[in-house]
Amino acid sequence: MRILIENVWILTMDSEYTEYKNGYLIIEDKTILSLGDMKQCPDVQVDRVIDGQGGLLMPGMINTHTHAGMIPFRSLGDDTPDRLTRFLFPLESQAMTAELAYHSTKVAIAEMQLAGITTFYDIYYFEESVAEATAEMNSRAILAETVLEDGCDSDEKFGGLKIAEEFIKKWSHHPLITPAIAPHAPYTNSTESLKEAANLSTKYNVPLSIHLSEMTFEMEKYGQEYQQTPVEYLEAIDFLSNKLLAAHLIFATDDDLVILAKYNVFVAHCIGANTKSGKGVAPLQQMIDKGLKVGLGTDGPSSGNTLELFTQMKLLANFHKTYTHNRATFPSLEIVRLATLGGAEALGMEKLTGSLEIGKKADITLIETDSINMFPIHDPYAAIVYSANAANVCEVWIDDKHIVSQKRLNNHSEVTLTKNLSEAMTLFKQKAENILQNMD
Amino acid sequence: MRILIENVWILTMDSEYTEYKNGYLIIEDKTILSLGDMKQCPDVQVDRVIDGQGGLLMPGMINTHTHAGMIPFRSLGDDTPDRLTRFLFPLESQAMTAELAYHSTKVAIAEMQLAGITTFYDIYYFEESVAEATAEMNSRAILAETVLEDGCDSDEKFGGLKIAEEFIKKWSHHPLITPAIAPHAPYTNSTESLKEAANLSTKYNVPLSIHLSEMTFEMEKYGQEYQQTPVEYLEAIDFLSNKLLAAHLIFATDDDLVILAKYNVFVAHCIGANTKSGKGVAPLQQMIDKGLKVGLGTDGPSSGNTLELFTQMKLLANFHKTYTHNRATFPSLEIVRLATLGGAEALGMEKLTGSLEIGKKADITLIETDSINMFPIHDPYAAIVYSANAANVCEVWIDDKHIVSQKRLNNHSEVTLTKNLSEAMTLFKQKAENILQNMD
Ligand SMILES: [Zn+2]
Ligand SMILES: [Zn+2]
Repeated sequence: MRILIENVWILTMDSEYTEYKNGYLIIEDKTILSLGDMKQCPDVQVDRVIDGQGGLLMPGMINTHTHAGMIPFRSLGDDTPDRLTRFLFPLESQAMTAELAYHSTKVAIAEMQLAGITTFYDIYYFEESVAEATAEMNSRAILAETVLEDGCDSDEKFGGLKIAEEFIKKWSHHPLITPAIAPHAPYTNSTESLKEAANLSTKYNVPLSIHLSEMTFEMEKYGQEYQQTPVEYLEAIDFLSNKLLAAHLIFATDDDLVILAKYNVFVAHCIGANTKSGKGVAPLQQMIDKGLKVGLGTDGPSSGNTLELFTQMKLLANFHKTYTHNRATFPSLEIVRLATLGGAEALGMEKLTGSLEIGKKADITLIETDSINMFPIHDPYAAIVYSANAANVCEVWIDDKHIVSQKRLNNHSEVTLTKNLSEAMTLFKQKAENILQNMD
Repeated sequence: MRILIENVWILTMDSEYTEYKNGYLIIEDKTILSLGDMKQCPDVQVDRVIDGQGGLLMPGMINTHTHAGMIPFRSLGDDTPDRLTRFLFPLESQAMTAELAYHSTKVAIAEMQLAGITTFYDIYYFEESVAEATAEMNSRAILAETVLEDGCDSDEKFGGLKIAEEFIKKWSHHPLITPAIAPHAPYTNSTESLKEAANLSTKYNVPLSIHLSEMTFEMEKYGQEYQQTPVEYLEAIDFLSNKLLAAHLIFATDDDLVILAKYNVFVAHCIGANTKSGKGVAPLQQMIDKGLKVGLGTDGPSSGNTLELFTQMKLLANFHKTYTHNRATFPSLEIVRLATLGGAEALGMEKLTGSLEIGKKADITLIETDSINMFPIHDPYAAIVYSANAANVCEVWIDDKHIVSQKRLNNHSEVTLTKNLSEAMTLFKQKAENILQNMD
């Protein structure tokens, strides 16, 4: 199967930011076979031609941190100060099931695909169900089973360790899915469980992730108990490695960043979740300056709400420009890089995806420029960051599949996906209603 | 003509935030005739029934500060530090024409209408053309001719004063349009021209607007020259009144806010433009606490880029929560209020529009909840602020017209609107290209 996409403004996001203002790209099976200026388009037989009509062709975007199983929580208690203890933990223990995680993940992936995201890094419970949903939806993903003391998918203390090991063994050969393990945070895990998780990551050579330096109480706890930052604590217990992706790092110090860079730890920058919760703005420029590989993350649908990177890119621009009082901070080109190749680097997948280059996987997003909000385009990166929203994404390919066509999923019904999730939420809705009623 | 909208979750945004979870609303001619729970829906003859299918019916949103003529500038030099002097002023003097302002305004209004905005406050040049475009597009608007020393629509110094007076006389009886006058900023106007503009506002009883306390150099200038803040300076020259809408007020002091409240000055809060330019976060909570009436503004398409309030609402939430380190700051209900009734109050139009109440004008927006990003809805205000984007708006009514139907304009072709604007931009594109080439 050979597909030709023509008449598109190609933003390759390769290391030289090569562009073809009127370009073509040929996909053969799962791979980018050729791309360039329309004038150089080879005269080869193709099975299908897509006229891009002047749209912006870019690498599929990469969401480096989310919790796809949490769609049921979206719009629940957003502005409530103690929502983690009031809503999230109780509802996870009372109403989260493998079935609910499965249907939620399908809806979450549909939302990401419709928004041009072709790869995501998930951390949640029932990761076996998450993986089944991901395989059915045909997304590229790293899927990490959560480890904490009382996980909702195990009756044992730190039962996630055992679940993760089984999960890793079972899914280690899937073409699109990389299994992984994720202790939730330093403060929700014993030193022993953190060490065991890191050992599993080493033993099976799989990714490791954690929420890190995200909470003020977290910083205070490690300061008081160990006279350390959480990062220093993790270094001391041999947790840091180049398999680790740390999410957030809002309160990371300059010294923390030097430590993280020493181990080539990756970073997921979740500006939307960090600022909606009022926590703060992570030192993104400093991370990059220290050589850390950083991608963007939406966090879960209860934290960042939408699972698309357009909102994250806008928030990133405005927050970092405001914090530095400089409109030139993080120009749009750099922000689009973070959403694509930067994300791929942060997932150790830059050889596979993240830019449009010959031989890379065909993870591709086409943004239409016909809608009024996209007019005019003096600068395509500015148009993506400042003008576009998820509804401007019109075509998406992942690996060997044409996933989104004319803004609709090709192989799934959005109505059925949400209907199935809604039906799986019966108990969840009851329990949520109980909590809401007890608040009034 | 009587229209029944049924099966909708009505957020009236009245003073008690009345909601009808399964509601109906009847429009008769230009007015809301009746609304309530579906069970109370009267058995009257109607000319048309719209099934809202569980969507969110809310007042049309109100954009209290924009420059609709500036669509040609969108995505041009966004991240360039000196863009005002490098791009905006030169291109306005070299390439802005009545024709360009006319076509730009039509595109801008189309974008606003498609995003559920039914009323806007425009400040620009060639306001006569802006008014013609607004009348053709059938939006409710306050349209203010700009006054500054070298306006691009006059060869005389402060020629906007004369243009404004003619404009006000001509348009003072239009059913949807209120003409107005707007000195650009204190620092771009002489004391004399500011006084004259205020006099015209009083003489013709029309709105007055200005960009205020927006720039650090502005604060320094008035501090050094007069030992005053810009607000104190405007009070001293008798510029302040309850006809005035001040945009931005990023650097307004507490004392400034007390002064502004004394004169019942209105405020346009433009969080997107203020933060994308790295300037800062205006003291919104303090304004409200002092009793000032505040609405939301997108600013022009070169500053805020999109002319919709969904992005503004999200930015407002995240910035003010982060600045107060409190996720409960500005809960979504308050933010939706600022985008609707708050905006109407800031325009002195709260008797006409801004909430769904019997007798008010039929300025109405329906947001569909079928799209995946809108699922689930535990809290409709949170869904609007944190989940929705402009593409979720599916139906819009303004006054006597059904403007947007199934996400498309009813009476205009979006393709034709942008095509006409693109053609009118020939000179503009050349001049912009010259500037860009000289930058490299
Ligand atoms: Zn997270
Ligand atoms: Zn402005």
